[in-house]
Amino acid sequence: ADTLRLAVIPGDGIGQEVTAEALKVLTAVLGAQGEQVATTEYDLGARLYHRTGETLPDSVLEEVRGHDAILLGAVGDPSVPSGVLERGLLLKLRFALDHYVNLRPSKLYPGVATPLGQPGEIDFVVVREGTEGPYVGNGGALRVGTPHEIATEVSVNTAFGVERVVRDAFARAAARPRRKLTLVHKHNVLVHAGHLWRRTVEAVHAEFPDVSVDYLHVDAATIFLVTDPARFDVIVTDNLFGDILTDLAAAVTGGIGLAASGNVNPDRTAPSMFEPVHGSAPDIAGQQLADPTAAVLSVSLMLEHLGRTGAAARVDAAVTADLARRAAGEVGGRSTAAVGDALAAAAVA
Amino acid sequence: ADTLRLAVIPGDGIGQEVTAEALKVLTAVLGAQGEQVATTEYDLGARLYHRTGETLPDSVLEEVRGHDAILLGAVGDPSVPSGVLERGLLLKLRFALDHYVNLRPSKLYPGVATPLGQPGEIDFVVVREGTEGPYVGNGGALRVGTPHEIATEVSVNTAFGVERVVRDAFARAAARPRRKLTLVHKHNVLVHAGHLWRRTVEAVHAEFPDVSVDYLHVDAATIFLVTDPARFDVIVTDNLFGDILTDLAAAVTGGIGLAASGNVNPDRTAPSMFEPVHGSAPDIAGQQLADPTAAVLSVSLMLEHLGRTGAAARVDAAVTADLARRAAGEVGGRSTAAVGDALAAAAVA
Ligand SMILES: CC(C)[C@H](C(=O)O)[C@@H](O)C(=O)O
Ligand SMILES: CC(C)[C@H](C(=O)O)[C@@H](O)C(=O)O
Repeated sequence: ADTLRLAVIPGDGIGQEVTAEALKVLTAVLGAQGEQVATTEYDLGARLYHRTGETLPDSVLEEVRGHDAILLGAVGDPSVPSGVLERGLLLKLRFALDHYVNLRPSKLYPGVATPLGQPGEIDFVVVREGTEGPYVGNGGALRVGTPHEIATEVSVNTAFGVERVVRDAFARAAARPRRKLTLVHKHNVLVHAGHLWRRTVEAVHAEFPDVSVDYLHVDAATIFLVTDPARFDVIVTDNLFGDILTDLAAAVTGGIGLAASGNVNPDRTAPSMFEPVHGSAPDIAGQQLADPTAAVLSVSLMLEHLGRTGAAARVDAAVTADLARRAAGEVGGRSTAAVGDALAAAAVA
Repeated sequence: ADTLRLAVIPGDGIGQEVTAEALKVLTAVLGAQGEQVATTEYDLGARLYHRTGETLPDSVLEEVRGHDAILLGAVGDPSVPSGVLERGLLLKLRFALDHYVNLRPSKLYPGVATPLGQPGEIDFVVVREGTEGPYVGNGGALRVGTPHEIATEVSVNTAFGVERVVRDAFARAAARPRRKLTLVHKHNVLVHAGHLWRRTVEAVHAEFPDVSVDYLHVDAATIFLVTDPARFDVIVTDNLFGDILTDLAAAVTGGIGLAASGNVNPDRTAPSMFEPVHGSAPDIAGQQLADPTAAVLSVSLMLEHLGRTGAAARVDAAVTADLARRAAGEVGGRSTAAVGDALAAAAVA
């Protein structure tokens, strides 16, 4: 039987609790088909930072590389200055491991409450670029703290970086029934980056003639996400716009308690990393109040990426059924662990 | 009697039609109090560009400066390359006339349909910075059209620029009943610009101790805009985040057909400019299908800015009543001009 070598980074706050449940489901569903999970847990995040001042030691990064995949909980704590863990741990992993496809599906599961009055059928996926754009950490500040301070942030976009994520998004669109790709950018203002994205989508389109393509400015895209989310199939966009759109998409499909993501390296030159979209929620941490569903759905994305398609589908079906039971009022008020137990049991039933 | 000297730039598409109605209402409401409106109309936009290749001739910009205010319709046409009119006309006006406060109120008027199931009471204003950030046009591209292309966009933020807009936002918050200011940025990733914004809000807060302040990352802000928009009172944010948030805010309060904006120069070193948030909508242009309400509400913002508080309130009341009549099914299917007629009549009734 195969053994899946998994690096686990529970991280901060509720990351700990939801990761435990995600692992429970993963172990159960793979165990049922005779596979083992060998986990290496890394204690990264606020605790390590306070103990050593480090966020991601080079030796740890090298060790992590030796795994088949990474499961991450959440990163961030009010005791650590803003940006330190985000840039030093989460983004460092995404960049170092070349997670250029940040995959974020948005689906309104049956029965799930949404803030929209008439949501329609929502089932799309955002392919967010993960290694470029305004996230590169290129910028700086001069005369800090004086009336003459100037601070810059540079969005860096390359043909290499844009083309590979656009091609990935086209391939995903081509494999879906609706075969529709929407580019979201702001090329009427960010003309240099925007036109690179636009020309790249036009060029790669020639390889995928069956996919229909349209374009929305990011501001208009937020409108459609609340007035007509059913119009979207696959969205491809840059790192920052993708960050914004996927939180909004999570909100309209029932909240970030359900939103899963994969930081994917499609070339498999390094392990991909799967994490819930939600943060560390320090206010409710350690109280078994967090919903582990987003982490569990991230496991489903991981299984899909690793070719365990059947297991992925079983996890997704377990979540779908559990959400329906919640909607019917059959379950509720459960602890984080109780939800994990139920999902693990359902995934192998 | 006073005469208001108004520069009018109808621009492209439905900009023409909605500006005519906004002027109709303005003339009526000021006329009723014995004031004249002297308009100078400037034919800028796609037509001028195709005729001369120019977007905003220096001589026109100088002439425009000699007015008390500017009324703008909409800018943009598919026949003109993306970015040319936006950067060469609209943004050039905002930057040249130092419109550093881009004021965008969001209010859910009684009876207006919203995509949200339970919207609550929505009444907030976004103070969007208008002269800095990723909109400065600082950036470029290298090896364009080759596999080695690199395109950058630089967000430029200065203490001078951030402080003045933050102070304006605090003053607006202090004058509102709830006295609440929310800073929206992304300082866990855009650390240089984000920390400048954060420190500035902290510093200026000392001048406005009665105002309560909180902070949201831009991604989280989009969630609250659909799950709990009533939580917002005054939002202060950068140019690009403000662009995104205000379209979303318009969507949840009944659509961009109702969203007004003011590009305000609070120091009054140049005329301020008032425009609907919506675009030129070339698909419905020239057919009297556009709703002029956003343009009319922009006139209300203009009147407020010019100290014509009573007239501003009458325009707002006319719109409120008209929207209630629409909700009651008493009116509907009207042409752009018919809506303008009704609003003008109601504003002087
Ligand atoms: C925590 C933060 C750095 C991160 C991001 O901006 O990418 C988060 O918001 C996300 O969406 O995964
Ligand atoms: C047309 C465009 C340049 C403009 C902007 O991005 O500011 C518009 O979207 C707006 O919000 O006024």
